[in-house]
Amino acid sequence: MNNNYVVIMAGGVGSRFWPYSKQALPKQFHDVLGYGKTMFQDTVQRFKNIAPLQNIFVVTNKNYYQLVKKNIPELSDEQILLEPIGKNTAPCIAYACYKIAKVNPAANVVVTPSDAAIMQPSVYEGQILKAIQFASDKDVLVTLGINPTRPDTGYGYIKFDIRDKSPIKKVLKFTEKPTLEVAQKFIQSGDYVWNAGIFVWNVSAFIEAFELHMPALHHSFNDAKEYYFTPNEHTYITNIFNHCESISIDYALMEKAENVYVIPSDFGWSDVGTWKSVYELSAKDAQGNAVSGNVKTYNTTNCIIKTSNKTLTVVNGIDNCIIVEADGVLMICNANDEQYIKKIVDDIKNIENGKYI
Amino acid sequence: MNNNYVVIMAGGVGSRFWPYSKQALPKQFHDVLGYGKTMFQDTVQRFKNIAPLQNIFVVTNKNYYQLVKKNIPELSDEQILLEPIGKNTAPCIAYACYKIAKVNPAANVVVTPSDAAIMQPSVYEGQILKAIQFASDKDVLVTLGINPTRPDTGYGYIKFDIRDKSPIKKVLKFTEKPTLEVAQKFIQSGDYVWNAGIFVWNVSAFIEAFELHMPALHHSFNDAKEYYFTPNEHTYITNIFNHCESISIDYALMEKAENVYVIPSDFGWSDVGTWKSVYELSAKDAQGNAVSGNVKTYNTTNCIIKTSNKTLTVVNGIDNCIIVEADGVLMICNANDEQYIKKIVDDIKNIENGKYI
Repeated sequence: MNNNYVVIMAGGVGSRFWPYSKQALPKQFHDVLGYGKTMFQDTVQRFKNIAPLQNIFVVTNKNYYQLVKKNIPELSDEQILLEPIGKNTAPCIAYACYKIAKVNPAANVVVTPSDAAIMQPSVYEGQILKAIQFASDKDVLVTLGINPTRPDTGYGYIKFDIRDKSPIKKVLKFTEKPTLEVAQKFIQSGDYVWNAGIFVWNVSAFIEAFELHMPALHHSFNDAKEYYFTPNEHTYITNIFNHCESISIDYALMEKAENVYVIPSDFGWSDVGTWKSVYELSAKDAQGNAVSGNVKTYNTTNCIIKTSNKTLTVVNGIDNCIIVEADGVLMICNANDEQYIKKIVDDIKNIENGKYI
Repeated sequence: MNNNYVVIMAGGVGSRFWPYSKQALPKQFHDVLGYGKTMFQDTVQRFKNIAPLQNIFVVTNKNYYQLVKKNIPELSDEQILLEPIGKNTAPCIAYACYKIAKVNPAANVVVTPSDAAIMQPSVYEGQILKAIQFASDKDVLVTLGINPTRPDTGYGYIKFDIRDKSPIKKVLKFTEKPTLEVAQKFIQSGDYVWNAGIFVWNVSAFIEAFELHMPALHHSFNDAKEYYFTPNEHTYITNIFNHCESISIDYALMEKAENVYVIPSDFGWSDVGTWKSVYELSAKDAQGNAVSGNVKTYNTTNCIIKTSNKTLTVVNGIDNCIIVEADGVLMICNANDEQYIKKIVDDIKNIENGKYI
């Protein structure tokens, strides 16, 4: 177990849950689903039987250092990797894996986002352990794919070899977010899974593949080896981040590598990317309202209402709305119009120097 | 002009505009329609060509003394009559009229609520002056009735003698709030007007009628004569109010007196009794929203939105709603369900000892 490491990506700044989540306190540091813990805490706890806490590394934006410490005080500063600037997932993951390789060249690494929900954590745990075993035995890159339940155009898809009868299947192709028509074909074909951004590999296999497909970035993070776990680490890393390209791990590595495998999985995964998904995963009252805060509802149905306890919120005769109040911002949105929230946030950004974002 | 006096009733505690107006700051002390002045200030200013300011008397709840002073600092304490307890309009009006009679037995008094809107104040002024002239000449009780525009069941109605061709007509009957069926008949008949609670009389005619129809209360306020404008006034008045019955001036006097006249009028009157009426009287944007506060609307129509400037309110994809935020309470109400607000306020009263009311 001591060869098992986890890299949790916690630097994201989502705007879809504005104003409930804002830049200063993004989604992963909220208890979005009312579990009594933040999504980040839930992510850390998911690995309690997989890796010791000292083997968990968090990569996050430098502004979220205090939030990470507050969420999991046991994490040492060595375990909190601070991105000076967001450059998508490839530099973020590479930084963590090269740093881990310095301390343990035989490390098996699980890479995961910190803002997804997993409703069956024990099933997840079993799949992760299976992936670690496979990756460690074979020097391959493994990903956990989610068996799709609908033709969602919000995810990337992974095509696997349908003739492969083993539970861990050879990946044929990574694809970007498809159109609805294409997504429907993917679902029908039966050989596609959703890309959940969960990866498992041995650091040596990762570095070998990264050197081949991203030679410049490989050299940067490899040359930084002598600075990892030293006082100069952040200065050196800042220099790399300031000059490297912004690129996803899918595009930088997974789409190009030949030795990629996927485990099609069902463990109640949701990226909790929309208010609709929050609504679906939340406990609801008899009228179908998912309510948290100091709220009284009358003749109100199918609403998601999340307010601070400072305000008494009274809702009368309303159906199918998203009502969110936090930190001096109130949003009332028809649930059918949630796709416009991103545009609204862009608009609000221009008010008073982004005061409300 | 110095014989003209005004009695403004400003003690009401409405719950219909909760949470915008609350017990601590009721409707008459709000700028409900966005005029740049409170409804009480608007009421006082309406009489600027009718009576000198020192002839304006305000009867209000003792808790609103500071509000009255803040609204019209020029009013002396002598002009602010404090009800120790609300006992409906008859004791309130009698108190003011008996007090005015002490200082000027020839006074002509206009009695008016302080929370109605009058869109054509110069027409109103003309009608009031006409009523004063008539009341002063004839020793009668005059009321200004509103020509009805719909079979509203929220008002009392006044039946006048349709054969009377003069503009000031003999009243045949005061009626309470009717059923819809009855109200429709009233409208069709052409000899009914709405009772707006606006009365004009000479104090001597008032006292004569009051003595006849409310002898006990007459004696109380008449016996108090020696205390008016003395330091003992409030103590004496408190005793009367604590022991007198709660009764409206309509029921106590107007329905019983024989010498009552009405001027059917059109001066853009509204009692502004519902959010619907606030909406109708307010300025609206191109999407039909009446908005005040720090508000951004997107794809939103026919809403009334009133918020404090402390909160940024974003409304997306909403139609026909009342959205009100004030002092730690937010209410979101389907405009078709506004009749339930009173019930909701009753329900909310039981939370935390009426903290939110």
